[in-house]
Amino acid sequence: MTRFDSATAVVRVGENRYAAELDPGYLIGTAINGGYLMAVLQRAALAESDHPHAVSSSYHFHRPGGGGPAEIETEVVKRGRTVTTVLVTLRQEGRTVLTGTIATATLDSQAQPLYTTPPAPVPPIGQCRSFDPRQGHLAEDGFLARVDVGLSPDSYAALLRERTADTPELYGYVDLSARDGGSAEDPAAFLPLAVDALPPIVSLLTDWSWAPTVELTWHLRALPEPGPLAFRAHSTLVSDGWFDENVDLWDTKGRLVAQSRQLARVGR
Amino acid sequence: MTRFDSATAVVRVGENRYAAELDPGYLIGTAINGGYLMAVLQRAALAESDHPHAVSSSYHFHRPGGGGPAEIETEVVKRGRTVTTVLVTLRQEGRTVLTGTIATATLDSQAQPLYTTPPAPVPPIGQCRSFDPRQGHLAEDGFLARVDVGLSPDSYAALLRERTADTPELYGYVDLSARDGGSAEDPAAFLPLAVDALPPIVSLLTDWSWAPTVELTWHLRALPEPGPLAFRAHSTLVSDGWFDENVDLWDTKGRLVAQSRQLARVGR
Repeated sequence: MTRFDSATAVVRVGENRYAAELDPGYLIGTAINGGYLMAVLQRAALAESDHPHAVSSSYHFHRPGGGGPAEIETEVVKRGRTVTTVLVTLRQEGRTVLTGTIATATLDSQAQPLYTTPPAPVPPIGQCRSFDPRQGHLAEDGFLARVDVGLSPDSYAALLRERTADTPELYGYVDLSARDGGSAEDPAAFLPLAVDALPPIVSLLTDWSWAPTVELTWHLRALPEPGPLAFRAHSTLVSDGWFDENVDLWDTKGRLVAQSRQLARVGR
Repeated sequence: MTRFDSATAVVRVGENRYAAELDPGYLIGTAINGGYLMAVLQRAALAESDHPHAVSSSYHFHRPGGGGPAEIETEVVKRGRTVTTVLVTLRQEGRTVLTGTIATATLDSQAQPLYTTPPAPVPPIGQCRSFDPRQGHLAEDGFLARVDVGLSPDSYAALLRERTADTPELYGYVDLSARDGGSAEDPAAFLPLAVDALPPIVSLLTDWSWAPTVELTWHLRALPEPGPLAFRAHSTLVSDGWFDENVDLWDTKGRLVAQSRQLARVGR
């Protein structure tokens, strides 16, 4: 079992109640990564549903989470043949950290798109290199050791300030780290972490600082193959202390598997 | 007072409880428009918050709503100096129609963007024309009489099948209808309706049919000026009976005021 699989495990402790032990290895500074928390809540939501896939998930972040015990409450709002929707709440020490609403359904792994935009132009993985503006600020065995991120040469240069970024966008690959055992047992279980694992897109415009997510919604558009996911991340507006970060992911077969957008605060 | 303002009014009937009278003039066939329902819930959420702006709102649609009485329940999850978040539930005859989570905050109307993408290339409003593939299917004084939508010449031709659409996208303008009294008292109150008022984007690919929204999230990015909003609507993937519809709105000053994405089912 990979570290990700055991770190996202939930234990049913009663009706509509689950317990989780949050792995401090997913800390970014003193706050635990939001993508990791979403991956934990997704497991609780799917345990309550008769459908296997989290097709549309919206989360609001209320307070920073930490390592250690967490309680999860679930509530099935609607049980349906096409969609079953589950509300999930994660609390630590009685305080609400994160709430989510997760629409679950059953996707067809053989579906052929009626329409699809072409995949983003991500160069071959062998041309990609690692760099994260957060790395000087974080623990050696912290969050950045949990995921492997490879950046395209242009994105790498932009993040290192070797070139000026005309538009805030990043291309590359993201995967669970090889040192933690690689791919998750269920590749779709990794997606909520993958959409919130990249360097904040505002790092291209401002010096890195803490960029707390207020809301993140992501949609599962196809069931991913195991292996690294190609990404495009971009922002359309940074204003008044708020920015949007959009992350799209394609699997090794070039299929769009996840679309996400978050609204976050520019850190100070 | 415009029809929209009175149709979206909510009355506080107790702690965390509001009542609304849904206007059947917003019906699309037998189901009431989701954007209208979101506009109603937004008013209840803002009434519970000390912040005036709904900056990030995610909604899950569980059952079709109808005209007539509706009950709204609110729950403040977190009250904060920067963000106060309110859960809202709309029920009719005891059945849950719609749940939402609305993050409220206080935007600065004078904010200057640190970065913004250029507005979409929407032609002048005088070149735009009205057509809706739903019009043959809907009542004369139904939903299409509530909003004025003008389509760019290319979008108009694509919806009428006078040309083939290479990509599913639409450009034009949307506003509250002149016959109903024009702009809302608070222009931001119209945005949740505006992001869900256009012909379903899949109408460019398939014959029109009912396209039920499963989830819609939209972000308020700036406070809009009164007047028509320029829009770009597009989809990136239509597959397995699911499609995404992305709607961005710019005000008369050319500022991006709303970004929305919904995941919906392709009707049968």
